[in-house]
Amino acid sequence: MEPSKMTPAQAARFAIRTGRHTGPTHGLALGYVQCNLVILRRALAFDFLVYCQRNPRACPVLEVLEPGESEPRLSAPGADLRFDLPKYAIYRNGIRTQEEHGIEHLWEPELVSFLIGSGITFDQALERAGVPTHRDRWVLRTRRPTVPAGPFHGNLVVTMRWLTPAQAIVATQVSSRFPMNHGAPIHMGDPAELGADLQQPLFGPPVPALPPGLIPVFWACGVTPQAAAETARIDLMITHSPAHGFITDLLADQLCIP
Amino acid sequence: MEPSKMTPAQAARFAIRTGRHTGPTHGLALGYVQCNLVILRRALAFDFLVYCQRNPRACPVLEVLEPGESEPRLSAPGADLRFDLPKYAIYRNGIRTQEEHGIEHLWEPELVSFLIGSGITFDQALERAGVPTHRDRWVLRTRRPTVPAGPFHGNLVVTMRWLTPAQAIVATQVSSRFPMNHGAPIHMGDPAELGADLQQPLFGPPVPALPPGLIPVFWACGVTPQAAAETARIDLMITHSPAHGFITDLLADQLCIP
Repeated sequence: MEPSKMTPAQAARFAIRTGRHTGPTHGLALGYVQCNLVILRRALAFDFLVYCQRNPRACPVLEVLEPGESEPRLSAPGADLRFDLPKYAIYRNGIRTQEEHGIEHLWEPELVSFLIGSGITFDQALERAGVPTHRDRWVLRTRRPTVPAGPFHGNLVVTMRWLTPAQAIVATQVSSRFPMNHGAPIHMGDPAELGADLQQPLFGPPVPALPPGLIPVFWACGVTPQAAAETARIDLMITHSPAHGFITDLLADQLCIP
Repeated sequence: MEPSKMTPAQAARFAIRTGRHTGPTHGLALGYVQCNLVILRRALAFDFLVYCQRNPRACPVLEVLEPGESEPRLSAPGADLRFDLPKYAIYRNGIRTQEEHGIEHLWEPELVSFLIGSGITFDQALERAGVPTHRDRWVLRTRRPTVPAGPFHGNLVVTMRWLTPAQAIVATQVSSRFPMNHGAPIHMGDPAELGADLQQPLFGPPVPALPPGLIPVFWACGVTPQAAAETARIDLMITHSPAHGFITDLLADQLCIP
């Protein structure tokens, strides 16, 4: 397809597939639903789908592909999950062994791909409503257990944002409208209630002291299934690399609740 | 438990289990989420869960039980799906062979139970908003195909209501807030667009002529998986009998979007 005739989502995927975009997908193709990716062998696919069903705030499933298929026909016809994410993480026996820019060489006919709604999707709606999304934001492990299914278990991973009370109210309203992208906050206030690990965020330095007047607000995070793969020592799980998501053709405003 | 200490949901299930309530569950334990039930053998469970994921308006899954388990620990601890619905329908090779008031004698360790949100749940919210729910309402087969998964395929079954334009707007607003109970309408206006069968509703006589000033409004219906079992000639599927649902401990207002 001629680049001039592409939608912003198709253009972003094309830039990723041709290696012109290799970084995080935050800010790309605004208005389109972004997804986290989980790929597992067929033998674990039912247990994982039940795990997602039992933990829908962390793992809202947008599409399940047939075994061996890599084209998400429903959410991005023509795309290919083996090429169209800028970076992948490979977990073997629960250990992240490598990162890849493509996974064609790892493909097996028994692999089942899951696309899981990402919170990046509602960042634009938050910004439009006056809630900043780029600063005062951390991804934290917690001690709150997820509901297990088959071998999958582990603690919830959350996104914490520091917001003013007015922003916290608006952010609750706005994010509630996106149940397929983690939806409403799962907690507000004291991080100790969740056992959130402020000393070792998944990315970056420890969380500094909370400035007066701000409230920590917590959302379930799409990194949760990766933590479950680690805890459960799943033999093989391929995922997006954090912040390097898959851009679908779905419009965020079409999936959201009015 | 002493009946006087039961919640309305527990009291309703107790009345059903002890045979004091044997009819439809519409109007029982108002405010609690009601569910449709699908029970299948483990070998088909993954395909069915993917079918639900691909058709979330018709089949919003609220709980998946472990194989052989009959207690829905997450949505109704202490309940038992073998006894706590007033009537069950048994499908063998796609044919509805019998109805039962209990299914203990049919139980197998390989059976997996799925609880699927029912539209009965938001009837109370519609009534509160001035939208009548008991009259001018039909369950219809359509010619709109569902998205298949494994052996599961077939056409969508819908609930059609005749509403005034003002009621149609309010009903869209209210039902949108209940995505786990079929959510927003899937269509408004001409039934031919869906290929809705007005001559043979699933229950009752043919649909009469539309009175002037009313709009047909259509929601995806929880009978859809039963139609898929028929079309796909699934070897064994146990379901609730239509309108005879399972009452959970979940509060409808807690599951809804504000």
